[in-house]
Amino acid sequence: MQEVVIVKSTPLPGKFAALAKLIGDLVAETRKFPGCRAAYLLLSPANNEQVVVHIWENPDALEAYLNWRADKGDFLRINEFLEVEQDFQTYQLA
Amino acid sequence: MQEVVIVKSTPLPGKFAALAKLIGDLVAETRKFPGCRAAYLLLSPANNEQVVVHIWENPDALEAYLNWRADKGDFLRINEFLEVEQDFQTYQLA
Repeated sequence: MQEVVIVKSTPLPGKFAALAKLIGDLVAETRKFPGCRAAYLLLSPANNEQVVVHIWENPDALEAYLNWRADKGDFLRINEFLEVEQDFQTYQLA
Repeated sequence: MQEVVIVKSTPLPGKFAALAKLIGDLVAETRKFPGCRAAYLLLSPANNEQVVVHIWENPDALEAYLNWRADKGDFLRINEFLEVEQDFQTYQLA
């Protein structure tokens, strides 16, 4: 079963561009991670919202990716730019 | 500029599978619409949530698509299965 993650981020005031740059760099890495079928960064400056969508071949690939990110400390780097905690949802790809 | 739409649907009790079937058929059409780069249907039975993500070459293609859907009456067909109105957000693809 393929899994999809949607992560919504709300940047701190004045940090929209800096967060978009950081997440854009991370998404470029995500695309190359084993088992990642696609990854997108979506921006809504009007709503002060940034959304990442990534699609995984199976749940194990997603789990390996999340562990790798956590070990690298990337979530802590993102948190410095956030107004509220990220909203993280997983779905089955139909 | 490429645009992305995320549409969130909350089916009525007992209508999860029927709505997923209907939206799945619509998404298959969406993929073939001129200017559509990709379209995905994401399911979360645990949260009673269905999400469609579609990616468009430019805003004009998205507008043409939405007009076509409205003219066909497809939004009315979907509404019969919904507990609350669809949440519809547009983003720029970074």
